[in-house]
Amino acid sequence: MNNKRKIINDPVFGFINIPKGLLYDIVRHPIVQRLNRIKQMGLSFVVYPGAQHTRFQHSLGAYHLMQQAITQLTAKGNFIFDSEAEAVKIAILLHDIGHGPFSHVLENTLVHHVSHEKISLMLMERMNKEMNGQLSLAIQIFKDEYPKKFLHQMVSGQLDMDRLDYLKRDSFYTGVSEGSIGSARIIEMLQVKDDQLALEAKGIYSIENFLTARRLMYWQVYLHKTSVAYERMLISVLLRAKELAAQGTELFASPALRFFLYNHIGPEEFHNNPNCLEHFIQLDDNDIWTSLKVWGSHPDKVLSTLSNAIINRNIFKVEISTDPISPERKKELTYHISQKLNISLKEAGYFVSTPSIENHMYNPDDDSIDIIYPDGTIKNIAEASDMLNFSMLSKKVKKYYICYYRFA
Amino acid sequence: MNNKRKIINDPVFGFINIPKGLLYDIVRHPIVQRLNRIKQMGLSFVVYPGAQHTRFQHSLGAYHLMQQAITQLTAKGNFIFDSEAEAVKIAILLHDIGHGPFSHVLENTLVHHVSHEKISLMLMERMNKEMNGQLSLAIQIFKDEYPKKFLHQMVSGQLDMDRLDYLKRDSFYTGVSEGSIGSARIIEMLQVKDDQLALEAKGIYSIENFLTARRLMYWQVYLHKTSVAYERMLISVLLRAKELAAQGTELFASPALRFFLYNHIGPEEFHNNPNCLEHFIQLDDNDIWTSLKVWGSHPDKVLSTLSNAIINRNIFKVEISTDPISPERKKELTYHISQKLNISLKEAGYFVSTPSIENHMYNPDDDSIDIIYPDGTIKNIAEASDMLNFSMLSKKVKKYYICYYRFA
Amino acid sequence: MNNKRKIINDPVFGFINIPKGLLYDIVRHPIVQRLNRIKQMGLSFVVYPGAQHTRFQHSLGAYHLMQQAITQLTAKGNFIFDSEAEAVKIAILLHDIGHGPFSHVLENTLVHHVSHEKISLMLMERMNKEMNGQLSLAIQIFKDEYPKKFLHQMVSGQLDMDRLDYLKRDSFYTGVSEGSIGSARIIEMLQVKDDQLALEAKGIYSIENFLTARRLMYWQVYLHKTSVAYERMLISVLLRAKELAAQGTELFASPALRFFLYNHIGPEEFHNNPNCLEHFIQLDDNDIWTSLKVWGSHPDKVLSTLSNAIINRNIFKVEISTDPISPERKKELTYHISQKLNISLKEAGYFVSTPSIENHMYNPDDDSIDIIYPDGTIKNIAEASDMLNFSMLSKKVKKYYICYYRFA
Amino acid sequence: MNNKRKIINDPVFGFINIPKGLLYDIVRHPIVQRLNRIKQMGLSFVVYPGAQHTRFQHSLGAYHLMQQAITQLTAKGNFIFDSEAEAVKIAILLHDIGHGPFSHVLENTLVHHVSHEKISLMLMERMNKEMNGQLSLAIQIFKDEYPKKFLHQMVSGQLDMDRLDYLKRDSFYTGVSEGSIGSARIIEMLQVKDDQLALEAKGIYSIENFLTARRLMYWQVYLHKTSVAYERMLISVLLRAKELAAQGTELFASPALRFFLYNHIGPEEFHNNPNCLEHFIQLDDNDIWTSLKVWGSHPDKVLSTLSNAIINRNIFKVEISTDPISPERKKELTYHISQKLNISLKEAGYFVSTPSIENHMYNPDDDSIDIIYPDGTIKNIAEASDMLNFSMLSKKVKKYYICYYRFA
Repeated sequence: MNNKRKIINDPVFGFINIPKGLLYDIVRHPIVQRLNRIKQMGLSFVVYPGAQHTRFQHSLGAYHLMQQAITQLTAKGNFIFDSEAEAVKIAILLHDIGHGPFSHVLENTLVHHVSHEKISLMLMERMNKEMNGQLSLAIQIFKDEYPKKFLHQMVSGQLDMDRLDYLKRDSFYTGVSEGSIGSARIIEMLQVKDDQLALEAKGIYSIENFLTARRLMYWQVYLHKTSVAYERMLISVLLRAKELAAQGTELFASPALRFFLYNHIGPEEFHNNPNCLEHFIQLDDNDIWTSLKVWGSHPDKVLSTLSNAIINRNIFKVEISTDPISPERKKELTYHISQKLNISLKEAGYFVSTPSIENHMYNPDDDSIDIIYPDGTIKNIAEASDMLNFSMLSKKVKKYYICYYRFA
Repeated sequence: MNNKRKIINDPVFGFINIPKGLLYDIVRHPIVQRLNRIKQMGLSFVVYPGAQHTRFQHSLGAYHLMQQAITQLTAKGNFIFDSEAEAVKIAILLHDIGHGPFSHVLENTLVHHVSHEKISLMLMERMNKEMNGQLSLAIQIFKDEYPKKFLHQMVSGQLDMDRLDYLKRDSFYTGVSEGSIGSARIIEMLQVKDDQLALEAKGIYSIENFLTARRLMYWQVYLHKTSVAYERMLISVLLRAKELAAQGTELFASPALRFFLYNHIGPEEFHNNPNCLEHFIQLDDNDIWTSLKVWGSHPDKVLSTLSNAIINRNIFKVEISTDPISPERKKELTYHISQKLNISLKEAGYFVSTPSIENHMYNPDDDSIDIIYPDGTIKNIAEASDMLNFSMLSKKVKKYYICYYRFA
Repeated sequence: MNNKRKIINDPVFGFINIPKGLLYDIVRHPIVQRLNRIKQMGLSFVVYPGAQHTRFQHSLGAYHLMQQAITQLTAKGNFIFDSEAEAVKIAILLHDIGHGPFSHVLENTLVHHVSHEKISLMLMERMNKEMNGQLSLAIQIFKDEYPKKFLHQMVSGQLDMDRLDYLKRDSFYTGVSEGSIGSARIIEMLQVKDDQLALEAKGIYSIENFLTARRLMYWQVYLHKTSVAYERMLISVLLRAKELAAQGTELFASPALRFFLYNHIGPEEFHNNPNCLEHFIQLDDNDIWTSLKVWGSHPDKVLSTLSNAIINRNIFKVEISTDPISPERKKELTYHISQKLNISLKEAGYFVSTPSIENHMYNPDDDSIDIIYPDGTIKNIAEASDMLNFSMLSKKVKKYYICYYRFA
Repeated sequence: MNNKRKIINDPVFGFINIPKGLLYDIVRHPIVQRLNRIKQMGLSFVVYPGAQHTRFQHSLGAYHLMQQAITQLTAKGNFIFDSEAEAVKIAILLHDIGHGPFSHVLENTLVHHVSHEKISLMLMERMNKEMNGQLSLAIQIFKDEYPKKFLHQMVSGQLDMDRLDYLKRDSFYTGVSEGSIGSARIIEMLQVKDDQLALEAKGIYSIENFLTARRLMYWQVYLHKTSVAYERMLISVLLRAKELAAQGTELFASPALRFFLYNHIGPEEFHNNPNCLEHFIQLDDNDIWTSLKVWGSHPDKVLSTLSNAIINRNIFKVEISTDPISPERKKELTYHISQKLNISLKEAGYFVSTPSIENHMYNPDDDSIDIIYPDGTIKNIAEASDMLNFSMLSKKVKKYYICYYRFA
């Protein structure tokens, strides 16, 4: 009876409608379904146990907001062809398919200098072949090669549906309710002016709130020191695994993970050797967790100690500073650990990490938002807002961390 | 069975517990119950029809947060006597009992220069007599005459339970979800240092969010131009009614409203003549609405036209400007109205209003919030936050409005 | 820019869209705006202080659900003309305009045997004249005189938008969260078969849940014994006021309330004398509360005692029984009160009330819901559900109350 | 500063407090942390993509409700020693530690006739040794060997915190909002009478609602036909893997999964061979998913076809019937599949499954709830409720499914 569309329940937005046909075929495609096995927030569950939602849910949510944004813009008299509307919905559904498990970790360890955007594009092109070119328009929009620029901006821009969904969703699932943003109101205020996405002036407070909510989510959630430390542990263990692999040591791993452990994959390799992509899409959170559990009893003390620490939640201690960590401090800690664990200094290096995190909350290049006044004039949010200190927000804040193994 | 405490359902916070005894007696007292008949947000329902919640609900909500704050502070090792805990809960329950209907309107028309805080105090003292001095400690705290200063700060201060409740509640009832604040987290972060209420440093993002949410609520809700205009209409009609009363014209009014229409009540009168307080507590939103409906058929054209316009939602037009409205513009509009309605220029004056609204979002005197760092040092939020532009926020923003009668 | 429609914030459903034109003109009409001054749940706030929402909000909410239901039915291939869609939206917007303050109370006191549905219809016809017949189709649907019967069923039937909104909304505002129903899912499952509104079989659990949620709301909220007692008090005081009025005693009242106090208005009078309707639309919650406060100092002891008890929340005691209250018990209580208050037995009668409340949770005539199976067959919910005991539910449950004045 | 307790954010209940010390040590224990890697709802995400929450979150939630229940019962005058309160909180925190991945699937394939309750107990005893007997009281309560029986009932009984949490939580995460129950109100209504947990009579509607919500969750969510089919696929593939393992075929698997694939483990073995438990706690959702992905390219056609179908969401078709599936129908389907896939009839058997699901919504043994009336009398819910048809609810409903491979 009700077979013209599929309804999916979403705890954040209620019912999400997907028309049967191309859009639903995409949602069901193995490459999209794979996102069901990749958590949106990676290791954040270590602090916020509710953060279990997947990149699949996020993609559906962003698609839902795109639907609403298009309805809104059309109601305001902006003409959008049905084919364009479908393409921009496809583009947002597919914008994250290039993510691997624990994206940032992966980019620092198993795959070198290959961005998830690039991989997304490679996968879209692969799907496009399979689907006889039905995704061509979506790909053009994704690559920002389509004349109507504002369509690309809804996929990737200052006010894109990606951000609107992930801030709303991550706040919902972590339980950090004050990180919630007025996505519905922001969408109500969207407008297009000279082919640029912009916001009606009465939405300015929603944008200020969006920027402070985002900042709160960054420091309180995404960059929470315990998550940062946990991530450093995962990086350490994967680097150690790669080192052991390079030495020919046998390590338990699924074939996909094995491929990236035993081979050094850089951007060129990734683009030229189709094996890479093939193995990449086989990889998800499960491969990593399964190996970590097995590595817990590996004879290599570095690998096993770190793996067990991750699995059993014995998280690195963290100290944060506004000044760089002194080499002496690091040396001293490393020495101490090498003594306690009876390992070499080089090996002990895997138990100490000194990342620095740089974050400017407002990047004029990325975040500049145009505000349209009723008389048609346009101002940049940095000019339009009398509240936020954009010059200060634009300054990069750099924090120095030292994370190190915690003895029970 | 369950007779040791009373549970009241609250859509915002769930169940609110009130122990039987003094606290419950206060909740049931006619002077507190009267707040059931006064809307928290006055005329805001004209824009946000959900804004129907009462000052009674707000008082209960603030009491509930006070309960949580005390539990929190005690758990952190701050000693609070049971008698103090009860007193500070009484103080917050009673902090708003001096409000009349449409507070700001009233202060500009029927009651002159008598603040609601003063009236709250007068009513507390009256109740205290009736209750044989059981409120004395609460009154001391309310007046900030109690040695432990932080108790007063929880009732009235930068981080008081009043603000935490009303921002949360008003955002909930208006449906402006992005105005929601993390009241639970802010309470978790409360601490006392040198007898001053302060916030632990990791709560700083919640405070930034609290300040932007408040700002959003101010401009988008409390000072929404349509509400401002509606309020000006009510001021106009009450001033006209007082003028007619002064001339001896008969006006329909309840005895309580009649008292304030036919007498000029200033602060001295209010304090010395017990009749004033007696009539004041008889007054609530109902008296005003009932009279407005009746005045709609009064022979005085000014009174009836304005009353009907309020009742039937024919709201003044509004223009906003950053410069003062020119006297010519006002004159011209007044003239036009006098012609159209065939009334004198003086009478036409009731149909034009040029309020200016001044608001600095951050007032160092009122809003300075102390942040405690783990090492015990304290910084002011203006120093501690690297996001908000406090020098700019401290500047008063002044907006000039012109509101005038709209012909159908 | 955004001037083709009006967006109203609703805490329950988010944004409600109203296209400018006829629909928005209706929303702004004084007869609809009057519902802003009538609480949806009358006196229920005495138990659930959050129950302050208005009939206006309910009407908007039901309108919003109607919009969604039409979208849904159309998507499933049921053809609905734009004019029909508009008319059915108008009908639901207007379905409650005939309500007076505290409907049930009024029907027992000031207005005799005139149902609010009849008054709604009279008001619709009045508005229709004013609007040059633009409401004719809506009125036809409201009266169930339009050939497509299912349209009427969406306004008033087993699955009408009225019920779906009020259960959802009342549960939201009282904070009785388990009374919430899956209105969105029920609407997703709507279908039309042989011009009858029906539900797809997979929605059957939602209907069972809807029926139990409704039952919970009835006994736990609408018929809460404290609310019942409070309502009896209001009936008593209004009957006393009418009695005094009949004797020529002077009572404070607005002209509208005065009209219904000093005249006996039955159905014929109401229909024939245009004055009745004129005064009726002037009447709302405010008139009642204002008079009650003034009557608190009336020389008539019955009137003043009851008025003060209502205002100051000294609520009648209640006992509930499954057997009728014995005349002796009533007599004894009445006698006791007459002694204590030093009034006649007849007067003491106003302080004792023995209502009985009959409620069958499932009325086959009103509540029969058709369930459509994928093969096209139709079953009644009573047959289709293997969970609910419909024969038992259809039995009327009768409860006997005795409510009487509580001495401090 | 705030080091006496740990606060964990929960999207369902807000902040959950855990005092430092024994309780927090338990939460951090590897055996409890392992629940972070097991989804509460197993394969239900295939229909409800939001159902990603873990058994760890559920355990914390049930612990939180236990805290509230104890506060409530204590406030009503039921004496509970601090040591008992701590023990019952430990018991609920640990009640699910014996779950493996996809519990029901596992019990049908890898582990035979070993209930998760038994395993929970074994693990508790293991932890108790490690923790020097600090869990002894908790274990006594868990095993129902402690004299105060009502404590056990709060862990496992008709109104236990387990059910109250999982219904609330599963409804939240699936987005099936009408499945939500009034857990807070049910807890408010708890009482102990003659050492039995019971409910105050005014909570009866909440229980009716709880029973219908549970029923809705069962048929609409837990036993959704697509989930049932998906589960059958996982059972088929694991049975095939075991068969291949028995034949000595090499299969990719983590050591823990390998142990259960290559050995036949029944209850005796499980209890006597400590290796079983050791491997069991290494097993979680990740091992299964990782193997399925690898098996997708295994030379065995049955194994690879089924694995790919699971991974790529090519779900078995399902037909449901109230009568048993005829052997002919099954035979015919099996034959068809054997032809299409060019495999033996025996092998084709893995692609057809005919489970029957029996569910009586109300089991007098498990679900009988005592209702206490104000006069102290007690009635069973089946007697007390005049709404639900308990005789009908007690009848087992049996549904017959046929699930079979779907060709693209």
